[in-house]
Amino acid sequence: MELTADQQSEIDDLTAQSFQTKRPTVPALEDILYKPFPVLNHGFVRVVDYMGDDSAIVQAARVSYGRGTKQTSQDKGLINYLMRHRHTSPFEMCEIKLHVKLPIFVARHWVRHRTASINEYSARYSILDREFYFPKFEDMAAQSTENHQGRGAVLSMDEAQKVFDILKTDALKCYDDYEYMLNENPDGTRKDENRLGLARELARMNLPVSVYTQWYWKTDLHNLFHFLGLRAEAHAQKEIRDYANVILDVCRKWVPLATQAFEEHALGGTHLSKTGLEAVRRMLSGEKVTRENSGLLKGEWNELKAVLGIKED
Amino acid sequence: MELTADQQSEIDDLTAQSFQTKRPTVPALEDILYKPFPVLNHGFVRVVDYMGDDSAIVQAARVSYGRGTKQTSQDKGLINYLMRHRHTSPFEMCEIKLHVKLPIFVARHWVRHRTASINEYSARYSILDREFYFPKFEDMAAQSTENHQGRGAVLSMDEAQKVFDILKTDALKCYDDYEYMLNENPDGTRKDENRLGLARELARMNLPVSVYTQWYWKTDLHNLFHFLGLRAEAHAQKEIRDYANVILDVCRKWVPLATQAFEEHALGGTHLSKTGLEAVRRMLSGEKVTRENSGLLKGEWNELKAVLGIKED
Amino acid sequence: MELTADQQSEIDDLTAQSFQTKRPTVPALEDILYKPFPVLNHGFVRVVDYMGDDSAIVQAARVSYGRGTKQTSQDKGLINYLMRHRHTSPFEMCEIKLHVKLPIFVARHWVRHRTASINEYSARYSILDREFYFPKFEDMAAQSTENHQGRGAVLSMDEAQKVFDILKTDALKCYDDYEYMLNENPDGTRKDENRLGLARELARMNLPVSVYTQWYWKTDLHNLFHFLGLRAEAHAQKEIRDYANVILDVCRKWVPLATQAFEEHALGGTHLSKTGLEAVRRMLSGEKVTRENSGLLKGEWNELKAVLGIKED
Amino acid sequence: MELTADQQSEIDDLTAQSFQTKRPTVPALEDILYKPFPVLNHGFVRVVDYMGDDSAIVQAARVSYGRGTKQTSQDKGLINYLMRHRHTSPFEMCEIKLHVKLPIFVARHWVRHRTASINEYSARYSILDREFYFPKFEDMAAQSTENHQGRGAVLSMDEAQKVFDILKTDALKCYDDYEYMLNENPDGTRKDENRLGLARELARMNLPVSVYTQWYWKTDLHNLFHFLGLRAEAHAQKEIRDYANVILDVCRKWVPLATQAFEEHALGGTHLSKTGLEAVRRMLSGEKVTRENSGLLKGEWNELKAVLGIKED
Repeated sequence: MELTADQQSEIDDLTAQSFQTKRPTVPALEDILYKPFPVLNHGFVRVVDYMGDDSAIVQAARVSYGRGTKQTSQDKGLINYLMRHRHTSPFEMCEIKLHVKLPIFVARHWVRHRTASINEYSARYSILDREFYFPKFEDMAAQSTENHQGRGAVLSMDEAQKVFDILKTDALKCYDDYEYMLNENPDGTRKDENRLGLARELARMNLPVSVYTQWYWKTDLHNLFHFLGLRAEAHAQKEIRDYANVILDVCRKWVPLATQAFEEHALGGTHLSKTGLEAVRRMLSGEKVTRENSGLLKGEWNELKAVLGIKED
Repeated sequence: MELTADQQSEIDDLTAQSFQTKRPTVPALEDILYKPFPVLNHGFVRVVDYMGDDSAIVQAARVSYGRGTKQTSQDKGLINYLMRHRHTSPFEMCEIKLHVKLPIFVARHWVRHRTASINEYSARYSILDREFYFPKFEDMAAQSTENHQGRGAVLSMDEAQKVFDILKTDALKCYDDYEYMLNENPDGTRKDENRLGLARELARMNLPVSVYTQWYWKTDLHNLFHFLGLRAEAHAQKEIRDYANVILDVCRKWVPLATQAFEEHALGGTHLSKTGLEAVRRMLSGEKVTRENSGLLKGEWNELKAVLGIKED
Repeated sequence: MELTADQQSEIDDLTAQSFQTKRPTVPALEDILYKPFPVLNHGFVRVVDYMGDDSAIVQAARVSYGRGTKQTSQDKGLINYLMRHRHTSPFEMCEIKLHVKLPIFVARHWVRHRTASINEYSARYSILDREFYFPKFEDMAAQSTENHQGRGAVLSMDEAQKVFDILKTDALKCYDDYEYMLNENPDGTRKDENRLGLARELARMNLPVSVYTQWYWKTDLHNLFHFLGLRAEAHAQKEIRDYANVILDVCRKWVPLATQAFEEHALGGTHLSKTGLEAVRRMLSGEKVTRENSGLLKGEWNELKAVLGIKED
Repeated sequence: MELTADQQSEIDDLTAQSFQTKRPTVPALEDILYKPFPVLNHGFVRVVDYMGDDSAIVQAARVSYGRGTKQTSQDKGLINYLMRHRHTSPFEMCEIKLHVKLPIFVARHWVRHRTASINEYSARYSILDREFYFPKFEDMAAQSTENHQGRGAVLSMDEAQKVFDILKTDALKCYDDYEYMLNENPDGTRKDENRLGLARELARMNLPVSVYTQWYWKTDLHNLFHFLGLRAEAHAQKEIRDYANVILDVCRKWVPLATQAFEEHALGGTHLSKTGLEAVRRMLSGEKVTRENSGLLKGEWNELKAVLGIKED
């Protein structure tokens, strides 16, 4: 991720400003406000605005007049209780706005989270930058032979180099042709006066989904946790997971108690099915439970063993 | 609306506090932050938190790095353009959180606006206060004979007094019995040790929908404008309209350019149907348009004449 | 629940009708279409329309051309897999529309589920019926001393009788006054020509939240399961739980495979926190885990023991 | 759009089937159920399922027991009334499910309509087909010089041919390399046993946004009309407009009264701003209104004149 001099100077201006407010304020988040955290080769996440803090969750749960008790120990217990018992609405009382730069194929996963507001860079109005996502060699993996949607072994250096060359050559060729069809410089001036440029909304069709776009994305903490629960998880594609992990770090600064509760009760825990729970109860009562007498299907049984740390068959 | 000494002192504490922030801040809204604006006899609206300002709308529309141009004239034009052309997503980038005290029958209208977050006072956990909405005499109106859902002529003083007496007597009787069934003081202590009180979740069944509840309500500016467009309008019941008008005033302080655009392009304008527009075009070209040759139904024709300020038939 | 002769005859007409369709059809649901299932003393739930079946979930998961494989065994496995791995979007592909009659205080809980469509009977347009919810004696319970929002021991017959008398007397008095203020018969004719009736939107303020309302409620299967997961559960108030259980029965007829998966993986299972899971792993490896060395708070430890069926301390 | 023999035979099977149902059924929609309507060069829209008809809207508005009055004239008037007065909730009572094949850049516009359910073909699980959108020559237009996001004059035949050659050459080159990197046949068999194929989730990065994807898309009629209001309109990109117009035709078959009301009151009408309405009132009262004395900005004045069919300055 490289910022232009203009962008850097604008960020410097924003981080230098200071206003008085009566609103709840989170110093640890103020420290990183506006600053881009790099993700992938050209992407970033930066916090542009926020509303509320841990005590806003407590306050909503209590629907009292003020900011609730000042005793952090009680706040922590209440937030844990809310998370544990799926009382999700108080977590909606915090809101965050991020500026994200991300490849289009990642954006297409992201946008499936519908309870959020988005303003995206428009390739009908403006020209996209010549920036594409190319995986690092260590992230170039073969199709998994077990998991229909996942990655398996990492490619050899030779193979990775070939893939990299293909991705890069094709992306740059497509971009050159995009520019050629547009017949327009990024600053809007005409390249060649003798020729009408193709409409931007058509020319952009030539760009691969590895091209970077950017957007403002605003959501509340409950929906953000839902996003993180699905996208910071092992089954998510590595590229969106990188974004999720950066955002998880942001949450740790912004709402430390809520994030701790989320990691304890949602992200880090597990769900047992009715039959799975019954199997655990029987194991704990001393019974020898096997795949056959567990009532579970093979896949379920293997998942249960893995989650319980059971080695033997 | 009366605040207890405790509530007043808590509000005083909140309005006295001051933090440093790098976030966009709206001084005119900071001035009224936390302060309750009275609505109806016991209700209020107060702003508890907010995120964004007019320039956040502009910024989202531009998806640029900084806060956009400093020239307010350009911001105003852009915001008007967005409102006029139904580019609604940038208005979602501003968020507000209100603390509202309101009668249950108003709350039941309000909650139909689904894109919002709510934490309501729970009558399963706590005892509701002895506060009911009783209309002022000038608001006690007969059923409209024209409008199936509206009000007609104001009742006579005598009639209004009778209605008031009924509403008050019934509400207080119900509340007394609520308290009796609970057998619990508002501070949680038992009234009569010899007897188990009825569960709160059952006892509250006895209360009329004129009783006051309260909630935190958080929404974005686009959805707030949608709410105001329907609830600040003449067809809305007067009681919710009173809340809408107070919130409209809050918007004028918070996002003056956006609110001006909203009042100009949405609230204050009108929608013409295809046939209605055709009738206007014909009138403007000098043609004599009548109900008969307009192609409009009687109700539509009357509405069109009213909106265009046409007197004659 | 009593139906008027008119209502019964309309239901008879509807259930007698028969059309040809190419759409997926569920015979077991067709059998109960339009028929009201009683809930509480005057309420009901009836299915008014539906879209999709188990195979619609499978079809969406496969995004294939047709209705997918005809082998039910594979469908069942896939639906279980989707439920287990929180692939929720295919469950959104089924839709159901219910007609529900319910007390207002239940409706106020219900409406917190925002991803649904509602058309409710309007007390601004029409006069509400003289029907209230009064609990059966066996459901009249004291406030729980352990659970802030729940019920404890059942009242004595004497106490229950007193509560019943209060609820009934107050409700009927309020209704009589409602009618008096309206000065209008349910069929819209004026009771007393000498007097203007109060507007309906004002008079209804006098009614307690135990009065019945009714609505059409339409939602998709994913959101319906979410509703059932929260409302068919022990912490939900008994009155809404009764509705949830009737709807759960409807689901068993409509989408038997999906409902089985829901009961196995969501409703009947449990969630273990990170520390709770660690405790279970340690127990299974033979370690003696106590409250003290578990890392869990007292409430969490007690919940874990209860869910695992552990008796001793 | 070409269907494979398998797809065609599956569609034939589906359209040949016939079930008995008590649900409201729309014969005109049954006639086209499952049949693909071609859009663009390889895309299509087909109705896969539906729920409700015009009378479901009426029924919800009336919240009555049965299907409401059988007099279509009254239904028509009520539906018009609802549309005119923005009583939108009854329109949510109808639901439709479409199977759509569309280029990714169109899908990215489409998905901004958040109140809908989607299951999309996954390029993590499966291999995308070798199908791309290439505009017809008559649709290849230069960037508009007036409208920042639109198209202007059509390119010359020579220019269009050049653009076509570029789009096609680049797309096919990218696809060949996609296949090469995957090292997998569309049926899942390995092409070259000596080499691990790249994970599908990575290889798909190389494809341009003109490649076709497909999805099941389910929404209610209110949100569908909102979609059509924005996407069947002149400012929408031509490619998504083509889809919108096909869906509008589907609506005419499915819910003719509602669609007529939509075209009359929403799609075909216009919105006048407060100042714009004031200008029209003044014109109708005989006053000479000019840009200068209208109070409107230049752009607003030009739009008003255009909409009112006023030629002179």
